[in-house]
Amino acid sequence: MLGRASTTRTRPAARWWWWRDGPARGAVCRPGRAPGSRRGKGFHFHYWALFDGHAGGGAAVLASKRLHLHLCEQLRDLVDILQDPSPPPICLQRDARAGLAGPNRAPLAGDDGEVPGDALPRFHLEKAVSHESLVIGAIENAFKRMDEQMERERAAQRVSGGCCALAAVYLLGKFYVANAGDSRAIIIRNGEIIPMSREFTPETERQRLQFLGFLRPELLGKEFTHLEFPRRIQPKELGKKMLYRDQNMNGWAYKKIEEDDLKFPLIYGEGKKARVMATIGVTRGLGDHDLKVFSSNIHIKPFLSCFPEVRVYDLTQYEHCPDDVLVLGTDGLWDVTTDEEVAGVVMEVLTSYEPNDPCRYTMVAQELVVRSRGVLKERGWRLANDKLGSGDDISVFVIPLGGPGNYT
Amino acid sequence: MLGRASTTRTRPAARWWWWRDGPARGAVCRPGRAPGSRRGKGFHFHYWALFDGHAGGGAAVLASKRLHLHLCEQLRDLVDILQDPSPPPICLQRDARAGLAGPNRAPLAGDDGEVPGDALPRFHLEKAVSHESLVIGAIENAFKRMDEQMERERAAQRVSGGCCALAAVYLLGKFYVANAGDSRAIIIRNGEIIPMSREFTPETERQRLQFLGFLRPELLGKEFTHLEFPRRIQPKELGKKMLYRDQNMNGWAYKKIEEDDLKFPLIYGEGKKARVMATIGVTRGLGDHDLKVFSSNIHIKPFLSCFPEVRVYDLTQYEHCPDDVLVLGTDGLWDVTTDEEVAGVVMEVLTSYEPNDPCRYTMVAQELVVRSRGVLKERGWRLANDKLGSGDDISVFVIPLGGPGNYT
Repeated sequence: MLGRASTTRTRPAARWWWWRDGPARGAVCRPGRAPGSRRGKGFHFHYWALFDGHAGGGAAVLASKRLHLHLCEQLRDLVDILQDPSPPPICLQRDARAGLAGPNRAPLAGDDGEVPGDALPRFHLEKAVSHESLVIGAIENAFKRMDEQMERERAAQRVSGGCCALAAVYLLGKFYVANAGDSRAIIIRNGEIIPMSREFTPETERQRLQFLGFLRPELLGKEFTHLEFPRRIQPKELGKKMLYRDQNMNGWAYKKIEEDDLKFPLIYGEGKKARVMATIGVTRGLGDHDLKVFSSNIHIKPFLSCFPEVRVYDLTQYEHCPDDVLVLGTDGLWDVTTDEEVAGVVMEVLTSYEPNDPCRYTMVAQELVVRSRGVLKERGWRLANDKLGSGDDISVFVIPLGGPGNYT
Repeated sequence: MLGRASTTRTRPAARWWWWRDGPARGAVCRPGRAPGSRRGKGFHFHYWALFDGHAGGGAAVLASKRLHLHLCEQLRDLVDILQDPSPPPICLQRDARAGLAGPNRAPLAGDDGEVPGDALPRFHLEKAVSHESLVIGAIENAFKRMDEQMERERAAQRVSGGCCALAAVYLLGKFYVANAGDSRAIIIRNGEIIPMSREFTPETERQRLQFLGFLRPELLGKEFTHLEFPRRIQPKELGKKMLYRDQNMNGWAYKKIEEDDLKFPLIYGEGKKARVMATIGVTRGLGDHDLKVFSSNIHIKPFLSCFPEVRVYDLTQYEHCPDDVLVLGTDGLWDVTTDEEVAGVVMEVLTSYEPNDPCRYTMVAQELVVRSRGVLKERGWRLANDKLGSGDDISVFVIPLGGPGNYT
């Protein structure tokens, strides 16, 4: 049970939204094992995701159909390891590894009666790796495989453009929230707001992008400079001193303007108008393999990352009440509605329904979408405070964390 | 008035400490202007810094003599701009700029009666730059110039090795705490701990270093791999699956071991034992221009950054009492004493002295050093809880933020 709502009433050009049709319940089972037997026991995970497309909907549609399958694929190799309370083995035995190559895979390490892992003594300076970090690695690699599949099949599947991806995975008592792009997730627990993601934009990733442009200037063509300036420089300003930031700086300083500084800055603009190479406003996500700077042969994909940042929330560490929720939303929601306003709507709507009413979470999601869209007046879509409503697509999941309305 | 203390009783080999001999009071005045005149008025800043050397003391000594002069140099150009409440000009007039070139510099922009800044109209997408970010930029560039000077003069000045640098600058009502290395600063305000820095080590900077190694494999020689493994791989493990992390990952995953993976990992070890290229345990600081991997021609400097992270604390935003302090300490302090323990010692010692006793801050610093060193027993230096005391050098500044013991 969970709540979701969205609207596409005013879908802007080249902007697309998508969601998984309800929570996917991914079963990770090793084939050839009877359910319930200790070694053969798989596990289930729950999965929700928002894919906010741009420059066409193909990438978002493909990701919504496949990302959870890539995740299954990554987790399949970890079935025994994640259920074994001892630390994950640093190195797997050769026999086990050999069995993992094909689709008709043989049993994992340990299936031959051995304890999975290496029989070698612990090494000097050996690093401990947690189960949790294996799940994070699995999610990261699932995103990577998804992006690689998109690259391979983009012609056949008619995938144009790209998409931001925000996925929540519930597995063995923990929520893993993976974000690549400008969607956002927060947990609201007992009225307190706990951020579960951060946005990846030209501004938040400025230094990573500038560092790449600095190290690989050939990626900038002859059109762009990796330096940041507060505005375009005019040729007549050559020789004057202007504020700049390079990849190592957080502050600003003055530099004498040289010929090379007249190029367009790699990162330019502020807030929602910030762009990489004057083209794209998000710096992580899936797809965009063909994206080029307008009227040029300069590819933008090298500057984009398909890797999400994964944050973990241990559901077993707290007692949750039926009003505690995880909210996932596309930027269409967050552009006009603050975290605090979302928390307010959550409380307001949930208290107006019985705690065991199955509709209450859906009603929250719907209310969040409706309020963020606003009402059509003569001067466009307006919010209750008369500010401009969101013209972007708005998709929201409201996932209960405890109580009768639990997602389990 | 401030407190400082240090001990070198057990200075380990190739490790060095240094501090500025009391707070430097840097006067930034434009020449040729009478003090007190509006346009000619300079300003003062207060400055404290810890330089924790390694592989010899030369870098720490040189930095202690020069870093504040570089800071003066950087701030000199900003005298008028920082005292003008209007936003800093994006572009300076050519006449003004020309006047800043030599040591006998002419007056700054605005000295001819013009308001400093460009007379051009504000541009579309022009970014606002704060006064604060100009000071941050000045500090960042002061560190850079210091490092460049060290590179130029290292032979003449007999500078070997390098040093971590932690500097606190008080300027126009704000504290700027700049850290490059593994020293640390905290503010203790009304018993609350406010971190004012973070440490830069192979672990905290893993992804930056791996990204560089990935993009510029030639910097790794043929000895190192940019991938991280939890331990060294043995040749006989070739073909097995082992845990790894690349530059995009925070989690861990298994990969099949290939020939290239047998190289030594760029980042290796955990906690205080983590090293870049098996050599150095800090990733930011000054110097180290000649540092190479043992018995090789592989330079380590390209992986090190001389840029500090600067955090700002606005002293005017809070009412401070005489017990509120800024504590700067080298890693010798923090390795054995937690933030909370430091806060406890601060409270304990300060309450045992009158609020206007000029010794009270010095006594805190001394107590912190003594407690972190411990007492010599038959099994080495031991803390009160019988844990091992710090064998490293320990230097501490305790700077009052308000009340009768104020630093002004």
